[in-house]
Amino acid sequence: MTEQVKVGIIMGSQSDWPTMQEAAQMLDELGVAYEVKIVSAHRTPDRLWTYGKEAAGRGLQVIIAGAGGAAHLPGMMASKTRVPVIGVPVQTRALSGVDSLYSILQMPRGFPVATMAIGAAGAANAGLMAAGILALQEPALAERLDDWRQALSDSIPDEPVRD
Amino acid sequence: MTEQVKVGIIMGSQSDWPTMQEAAQMLDELGVAYEVKIVSAHRTPDRLWTYGKEAAGRGLQVIIAGAGGAAHLPGMMASKTRVPVIGVPVQTRALSGVDSLYSILQMPRGFPVATMAIGAAGAANAGLMAAGILALQEPALAERLDDWRQALSDSIPDEPVRD
Amino acid sequence: MTEQVKVGIIMGSQSDWPTMQEAAQMLDELGVAYEVKIVSAHRTPDRLWTYGKEAAGRGLQVIIAGAGGAAHLPGMMASKTRVPVIGVPVQTRALSGVDSLYSILQMPRGFPVATMAIGAAGAANAGLMAAGILALQEPALAERLDDWRQALSDSIPDEPVRD
Amino acid sequence: MTEQVKVGIIMGSQSDWPTMQEAAQMLDELGVAYEVKIVSAHRTPDRLWTYGKEAAGRGLQVIIAGAGGAAHLPGMMASKTRVPVIGVPVQTRALSGVDSLYSILQMPRGFPVATMAIGAAGAANAGLMAAGILALQEPALAERLDDWRQALSDSIPDEPVRD
Amino acid sequence: MTEQVKVGIIMGSQSDWPTMQEAAQMLDELGVAYEVKIVSAHRTPDRLWTYGKEAAGRGLQVIIAGAGGAAHLPGMMASKTRVPVIGVPVQTRALSGVDSLYSILQMPRGFPVATMAIGAAGAANAGLMAAGILALQEPALAERLDDWRQALSDSIPDEPVRD
Amino acid sequence: MTEQVKVGIIMGSQSDWPTMQEAAQMLDELGVAYEVKIVSAHRTPDRLWTYGKEAAGRGLQVIIAGAGGAAHLPGMMASKTRVPVIGVPVQTRALSGVDSLYSILQMPRGFPVATMAIGAAGAANAGLMAAGILALQEPALAERLDDWRQALSDSIPDEPVRD
Amino acid sequence: MTEQVKVGIIMGSQSDWPTMQEAAQMLDELGVAYEVKIVSAHRTPDRLWTYGKEAAGRGLQVIIAGAGGAAHLPGMMASKTRVPVIGVPVQTRALSGVDSLYSILQMPRGFPVATMAIGAAGAANAGLMAAGILALQEPALAERLDDWRQALSDSIPDEPVRD
Amino acid sequence: MTEQVKVGIIMGSQSDWPTMQEAAQMLDELGVAYEVKIVSAHRTPDRLWTYGKEAAGRGLQVIIAGAGGAAHLPGMMASKTRVPVIGVPVQTRALSGVDSLYSILQMPRGFPVATMAIGAAGAANAGLMAAGILALQEPALAERLDDWRQALSDSIPDEPVRD
Repeated sequence: MTEQVKVGIIMGSQSDWPTMQEAAQMLDELGVAYEVKIVSAHRTPDRLWTYGKEAAGRGLQVIIAGAGGAAHLPGMMASKTRVPVIGVPVQTRALSGVDSLYSILQMPRGFPVATMAIGAAGAANAGLMAAGILALQEPALAERLDDWRQALSDSIPDEPVRD
Repeated sequence: MTEQVKVGIIMGSQSDWPTMQEAAQMLDELGVAYEVKIVSAHRTPDRLWTYGKEAAGRGLQVIIAGAGGAAHLPGMMASKTRVPVIGVPVQTRALSGVDSLYSILQMPRGFPVATMAIGAAGAANAGLMAAGILALQEPALAERLDDWRQALSDSIPDEPVRD
Repeated sequence: MTEQVKVGIIMGSQSDWPTMQEAAQMLDELGVAYEVKIVSAHRTPDRLWTYGKEAAGRGLQVIIAGAGGAAHLPGMMASKTRVPVIGVPVQTRALSGVDSLYSILQMPRGFPVATMAIGAAGAANAGLMAAGILALQEPALAERLDDWRQALSDSIPDEPVRD
Repeated sequence: MTEQVKVGIIMGSQSDWPTMQEAAQMLDELGVAYEVKIVSAHRTPDRLWTYGKEAAGRGLQVIIAGAGGAAHLPGMMASKTRVPVIGVPVQTRALSGVDSLYSILQMPRGFPVATMAIGAAGAANAGLMAAGILALQEPALAERLDDWRQALSDSIPDEPVRD
Repeated sequence: MTEQVKVGIIMGSQSDWPTMQEAAQMLDELGVAYEVKIVSAHRTPDRLWTYGKEAAGRGLQVIIAGAGGAAHLPGMMASKTRVPVIGVPVQTRALSGVDSLYSILQMPRGFPVATMAIGAAGAANAGLMAAGILALQEPALAERLDDWRQALSDSIPDEPVRD
Repeated sequence: MTEQVKVGIIMGSQSDWPTMQEAAQMLDELGVAYEVKIVSAHRTPDRLWTYGKEAAGRGLQVIIAGAGGAAHLPGMMASKTRVPVIGVPVQTRALSGVDSLYSILQMPRGFPVATMAIGAAGAANAGLMAAGILALQEPALAERLDDWRQALSDSIPDEPVRD
Repeated sequence: MTEQVKVGIIMGSQSDWPTMQEAAQMLDELGVAYEVKIVSAHRTPDRLWTYGKEAAGRGLQVIIAGAGGAAHLPGMMASKTRVPVIGVPVQTRALSGVDSLYSILQMPRGFPVATMAIGAAGAANAGLMAAGILALQEPALAERLDDWRQALSDSIPDEPVRD
Repeated sequence: MTEQVKVGIIMGSQSDWPTMQEAAQMLDELGVAYEVKIVSAHRTPDRLWTYGKEAAGRGLQVIIAGAGGAAHLPGMMASKTRVPVIGVPVQTRALSGVDSLYSILQMPRGFPVATMAIGAAGAANAGLMAAGILALQEPALAERLDDWRQALSDSIPDEPVRD
């Protein structure tokens, strides 16, 4: 019996994977089942439509969407489903991801996207945020998350290593 | 016999109209038939889909799309139709329309949006750009456009009025 | 019997209320019980500490935190509790809320804050995001949220009113 | 018999070619005849004048103009001809092309420039936008453009390659 | 016998006059003869051409050019004449004059524009800079300029007035 | 007998050390005793609390705090102690340290952070500022600081070395 | 017997007073003696020179310097004296004080300026920072500062007033 | 007999030389005598004072000043002499020279600095601007400048080299 996939990690293109894999790794670390898909708002709009329409029915509980530039994927997904969408602005060449950020963040009243920091840290945090949402219903995951957080705190040395 | 509508002016919400009416007025001035619709990328995504899919078949030759904030309308429309899309970034409160601009401008390879200046001047210019495109096939419109341009030049006085 | 409060709306100061009340109104509209508190990261750090430490135990499922300028409240709250934190950047005078945005958004790996748009739209969307998270466990709320979204879509006229 | 050149690709200097060749390659791919010229607004203003004045008469239907920094070429060309001008902001060293962007985009009422994204993606899209405009009169090109768009969509895999 | 006009103050449109009059007033104050013209880079490009070509021959020694948005006037004038061009970025609505600034400042090697601060202070300083250049050849003007500068210093009270 | 440590250099993580070591080196050069600690606002908030509460009592006279991104350490420390806090914005990847800067600088009325330039120069200057503050009470240090400043001035050659 | 003035509040012009008076009021509130002077880096450079050279000898322990635009006063003062300089970026019209901020903050290695937030909050905090520095030597002031901080914390109500 | 030096090229530090040498090379090319000095606003303020005070008397007709970060040199020099000052913003690491630009450009009414583009192009143009100012009094230099400009125009090929 396969575990029910509760988190969908989607991204606009292959080039977003080096960033978005941080979300996948975090979910692996926390033992959360997920799927990874390329869903391009502009190149595969029908795929976006279908994904959004079926998300709730398929049992998805969180969608993590990463995109760069005129990053329409997270916001369009938020328009198609009530399942919470977490947006990750991928860093870009000319504008350092500020274009991605504004395209994801500045959603109009009605369609929130839970925006994370630009780049890899944001993608990792998207995984954590997804886990935090799921943990509201899963005490075991809540405990794993608490442990992860405690381990992070414990790993901080008292002084920096000076080379 | 009604004239074939060749330009569609669409916008994300009523609040964009004070900006986008500049495009309509310009087309009125130049004698170009157009329609005006509210098509919200997030609130009426299906309307966007239908509008995009039917645009070419309905004989639309240019789509002028205005939006503010995470302005996904122009780019999503460009994803749904090969009819040229002109984007107008509407000025916003916190970010002055830079959010609108980046969301419209920074489209990935494959889906161009002809982006105009932020705000009213951009909307008026969207009307002129639409007319310029149509004028490639309509000598009479080309002439009206030339006249409009000449009149603009002729209207510039030699010196500013000093009060 | 009082309803269990599941959402905490906190803010750095009284001056954030005109923005943050949008979150409260949205939760009212969707029938979600919430509390409203002033918790200042800098002026009442101990209150922040206590609030964060007790959040999960008190049954809070989402914390909405609004702040402006060097806006440390959302991120510090995320450091103190695994309960999902939604951050609202309040618009500021000199820097239009870009300072608030960067202080809330750019969290390091480990402590996600679900950042919303700058200002009132962001606060309203924080309410919607909170409802979307709670709706994962409450079918009745999910239905109300679907209805709210449908009503929003239905309210969009086909054409703008031209005055 | 040579094919009528309908698109002029112009740029301010040799250093813009690595960016602007993307427009040329796109037109090659779509089977659109074009010419490539260096026209510097500042170093060869008379060449700009002549090019603009003769554009319509020579049968040019679209001008793609790329430039960086204080990028005056696209806007000055738009001042000299009613032929639609597409502007490509070339990325710059200190300001990442934001200087190019503002110099091209922020045209006053009367002289639209259809501005594309900063850099290579923008140049490629300029080729696509030119093709989209020409396709309004050339059903065969419209079909090739549809095919190109379909092929782009079809090329998107369902999942990213994970290395 | 009329005094030889040595400074030309030009601007893109009537709307620049409230800013550019500061330059005129400064030259009045310093007793420098000037002319004021509207020369629009986009609406009257031929006027720009003629003005630039005739500038040196007419005895102009400095040209002060003010413009806003995609502000091409100063740079295009610098392309047409070796007479020193001082550029004044006029403040704009959406982008506060940063668009004007970048369009004027970021000139390529070969065509310097002496750029002043954004807005009224910049226009006043353009007048002072013009006077400083002319003063290199006119000892009497150098003296008036020294006096003006001394008077400015002398006018500064030791303490602010506290109301 | 160990010298009383009067300056605490704290930073959010090991990755801040290459920047913050400049502060340490400067204090070494000026003969000021200091300690170096990792205190993470988010990962070790209790350590921050304790450090802040004990600072004055332990005889610390200046705290130099460096952090990057949503840099909450300096401001939170300023909230916990009246000992002067000097903040160093560490340069970041996507936003070049502007995020760090705004998070440190834009403190609300009540909790000043003495913010230094972004990056290494800012860290070195934090050391100098700390020394300047301590020098108010230590004539010998004041003299060393004067000497350091004089030596810096003396080291400037009259002309650049041209290679 | 007059109290020794230990804090100098200086500013570039009368127009900075509405901002800088916040520093004065804070020092009044905390019972710290200060003087207020206009010292313009550009209009009264010799006054700046003299002020800087005499600062330490006159017993000044902190200099608070506010300025706007190309705000050279704080940095030039830091170049002339080892007395700690606190800089306040005054908000400006076109650039909102970001010009003031960068001119004050980005000092090279050797000459720190303790930069405060843009505008009134920054000026008030400059007063607090000055008090914090003086408190290192004055236990009574340290106590008054502690009380002021405690009163600020105590003044924060538990909930916002909803109108 | 040595030629009278009419242009002073000054810079804040050795690290500015790679940029500022472009100005020197341009003056070499145009046959204009110049001197090159390091004058640091902060490290050698007295040198700045002396240089400014003696500039006019020594026969300097233009001062080219380059600096980076909190770039006070050009503006402070403009405060000390009526000789026209041309400012070159040197590109910086964290802020790409926008800090240098604002510190140089945003001078208050009374003290103009003729600001050039950020970096090497700006330095070369500073040389050209200096030559243009001197050419007002030297017909032979005016001719050399015309020739240089003509040669630049003539060097532009009709088409880019495609590799």
